[in-house]
Amino acid sequence: MAESRLKFPETPQVQEARAQPARVGVIEELIQALRCLPGVGPKSAQRMAYHLLQRDREGGRRLSLAIGEAVERVGNCRRCRTLTDAEICDVCRDDSRDPTTLCIVETPADMIAIDKGTGFKGLYFVLMGHLSPLDGIGPEQIGLNALEQRLDQGEVREVVLATSSTVEGQATAHYIGEMVRARKLKATRLAYGIPLGGELEFVDSTTLAHAFRGRTELE
Amino acid sequence: MAESRLKFPETPQVQEARAQPARVGVIEELIQALRCLPGVGPKSAQRMAYHLLQRDREGGRRLSLAIGEAVERVGNCRRCRTLTDAEICDVCRDDSRDPTTLCIVETPADMIAIDKGTGFKGLYFVLMGHLSPLDGIGPEQIGLNALEQRLDQGEVREVVLATSSTVEGQATAHYIGEMVRARKLKATRLAYGIPLGGELEFVDSTTLAHAFRGRTELE
Repeated sequence: MAESRLKFPETPQVQEARAQPARVGVIEELIQALRCLPGVGPKSAQRMAYHLLQRDREGGRRLSLAIGEAVERVGNCRRCRTLTDAEICDVCRDDSRDPTTLCIVETPADMIAIDKGTGFKGLYFVLMGHLSPLDGIGPEQIGLNALEQRLDQGEVREVVLATSSTVEGQATAHYIGEMVRARKLKATRLAYGIPLGGELEFVDSTTLAHAFRGRTELE
Repeated sequence: MAESRLKFPETPQVQEARAQPARVGVIEELIQALRCLPGVGPKSAQRMAYHLLQRDREGGRRLSLAIGEAVERVGNCRRCRTLTDAEICDVCRDDSRDPTTLCIVETPADMIAIDKGTGFKGLYFVLMGHLSPLDGIGPEQIGLNALEQRLDQGEVREVVLATSSTVEGQATAHYIGEMVRARKLKATRLAYGIPLGGELEFVDSTTLAHAFRGRTELE
């Protein structure tokens, strides 16, 4: 084969390309950018990038537009503070819901979980976080001014506290509970105890102790 | 509280909003669009969407642009067929590489894995798939015409077959191996055997049988 040592036909292009300065390629930038998604490390980011480029450019185009649209247009609902692209979100607009019961949650995802998983048909108020004074997140940052105004309007009779069962979530629930009781309204919170379908052995001791203290009589 | 049954101050807006027809929201569209990514189901898509909207809009903007750019600009390298936004990819442009050894891989990710993980400093040819006659993927679809031309130019002396060790990958390697040998060039393939650092007990029986048959004498 040595006799036919032809130069490669694209040599001028190769030479021209070689003269260009090094730069961050479009693919590397895509892999980097994908890492802003939660749970996506370097390996998954690479896999996602090549998947889009090799197998699903149409999906990629749609995703690019969808992210761009959402990032520019989504704001907070004026009534419940959840994320929405409308002035007032679909839930707050729903006539058939009971406006006398207001469920307080930390995030839009919690709101969806309760709405799908329980039969609750009242309205929501989304804190978009929890009290965390060390991070500068006080009552105003989680919208408690707006919540107070809403409670003062007198439509709400019962406030269901459905914040997380973390220390911050509990503190936030306690704070709001005081606010609600000061207005002589009913404040309730989700029941804490042993999750259904779990083995007792694997329930953490704090939960177990809480469930034991809160035991109820058989009916 | 019943005496102060004021109407909510945003009522005109709420009414106006209620008059609008139902539509797929921007957030739902984002969650749907995220599901085109590999390994992303409904739960992760929702988590990703809310993460972008609540905590990282800047990352979202960057990601939207990066996907858009990549989807429009990335094509295949004219020499090795890997994905690149340039005419000729960085690896093919690299002067310091040995053009006499050509490593055949199925995907750009395989090429990166070999380039990072081994000391290989030759060039690559990326099939962008493997032979799969039932799916209409024949020699032309995986670029074997271009590979033949390249082999005929006489610069390549050794072809390293680094396709996957699946049935399709092996069949593809066999086909290319014949092509290479017909030109009196050297064809080699990656060694198959027991992965390093694994317990023998957990190696699958096909691999174990292959490794046993292919045992080598101690030096």
